[in-house]
Amino acid sequence: MDVAILIYEGFTALDVTGPFEVLSRLPDARVRFVSATPGMVAADQPGFGLVAEPLESMERPGVVVVSGGSTTTRFLDDEAVLSWLRRTHETSVWTTSVCTGSLLLGAAGLLQGRAATTFWYELDSLRCFGAEPVSRRVVEDGKIITAAGVSSGIDMALVVCDRLQGPAYAQAVQLGIEYDPQPPHDAGSVDKAPAEVVRFMRDNLERAYGPSWARRNYHTS
Amino acid sequence: MDVAILIYEGFTALDVTGPFEVLSRLPDARVRFVSATPGMVAADQPGFGLVAEPLESMERPGVVVVSGGSTTTRFLDDEAVLSWLRRTHETSVWTTSVCTGSLLLGAAGLLQGRAATTFWYELDSLRCFGAEPVSRRVVEDGKIITAAGVSSGIDMALVVCDRLQGPAYAQAVQLGIEYDPQPPHDAGSVDKAPAEVVRFMRDNLERAYGPSWARRNYHTS
Repeated sequence: MDVAILIYEGFTALDVTGPFEVLSRLPDARVRFVSATPGMVAADQPGFGLVAEPLESMERPGVVVVSGGSTTTRFLDDEAVLSWLRRTHETSVWTTSVCTGSLLLGAAGLLQGRAATTFWYELDSLRCFGAEPVSRRVVEDGKIITAAGVSSGIDMALVVCDRLQGPAYAQAVQLGIEYDPQPPHDAGSVDKAPAEVVRFMRDNLERAYGPSWARRNYHTS
Repeated sequence: MDVAILIYEGFTALDVTGPFEVLSRLPDARVRFVSATPGMVAADQPGFGLVAEPLESMERPGVVVVSGGSTTTRFLDDEAVLSWLRRTHETSVWTTSVCTGSLLLGAAGLLQGRAATTFWYELDSLRCFGAEPVSRRVVEDGKIITAAGVSSGIDMALVVCDRLQGPAYAQAVQLGIEYDPQPPHDAGSVDKAPAEVVRFMRDNLERAYGPSWARRNYHTS
């Protein structure tokens, strides 16, 4: 099973490493990072880079994973990326994304009329691509599976394992990465975090990146 | 705050990326991978490598994170690694490990008389270093924090955030990586996974790596 993980300058390290770790454990998996700018690709936090192969090196992956990142919206008109997504989606078994990666699936036209999710801060942006935004950790619609922010790629990849190899296999992979989460707080979603923490993060993100893509481009509320 | 993440050929990708992603979000964080074999260091699954700086480039990190991996036990007598761990531990604020990384802390003599954890398959090996093995996701003893397998580095790093910056900051980071885990199954620990799944994984690990380090070296049960 070939798995292609699409990255670009400014991808988020954990977005791709969760799916990499899980999907590498599929039988006969060949998991590779691919990019329109192959070679060393820098993540959005300094000190982390991954080597990617050219997009053309993976034309018929069984699983496609699209990374999110701080820079995703800069690539929403990158025709090399979008046409590769359309091509690989024709033959993929599962086409997936983590975090803002779903905006790239949207820009490629693959989310028209579909339920999808993304990083909470960009959830409204999915509407601009004809998708129905759903505030859920993992959203499966047909053969497209989108995941919420950053760490949710782990859960999404375990769902892919489950669909491809059945529940016992997915459970074995989960035990192999000892994914029995017990964070010190229960603040991992906008519904669960204290209101002032959500406000703090929203302000931080707005200062760093501006309003969400939808609000910047469509002046939605 | 300087954070040094120790890696070596055969480290596990997700062991280090969880802490990297979380600790990069500390104020003024400088997170770097370091290795006794600097340059490109290959993970234990093909297709993933990270560039590491020499150990000497980080002599007084505030936080030390030791990665686990499929090859950890090969480095238990690597004096360059062990002496760097002893030196940095003298001045660190927190000395931490993920997965089998705690065996390296043990080999460096830092776990004598301390409670610690590691990947479930190697839990008994901690006793060989005078540590008290605890089957828990994150174990804090003095300024040493050890984490269980692979994905538990995320939880451990959030604990470090909490200790350094307080609960609201840790919650903000958790929301930033949207860590609100909802895996498709509840099988992430030996206590929760079905017995046949635990047996399957135990057999798999034994075939791949042999018995645990303790059983190989001390003929414990």
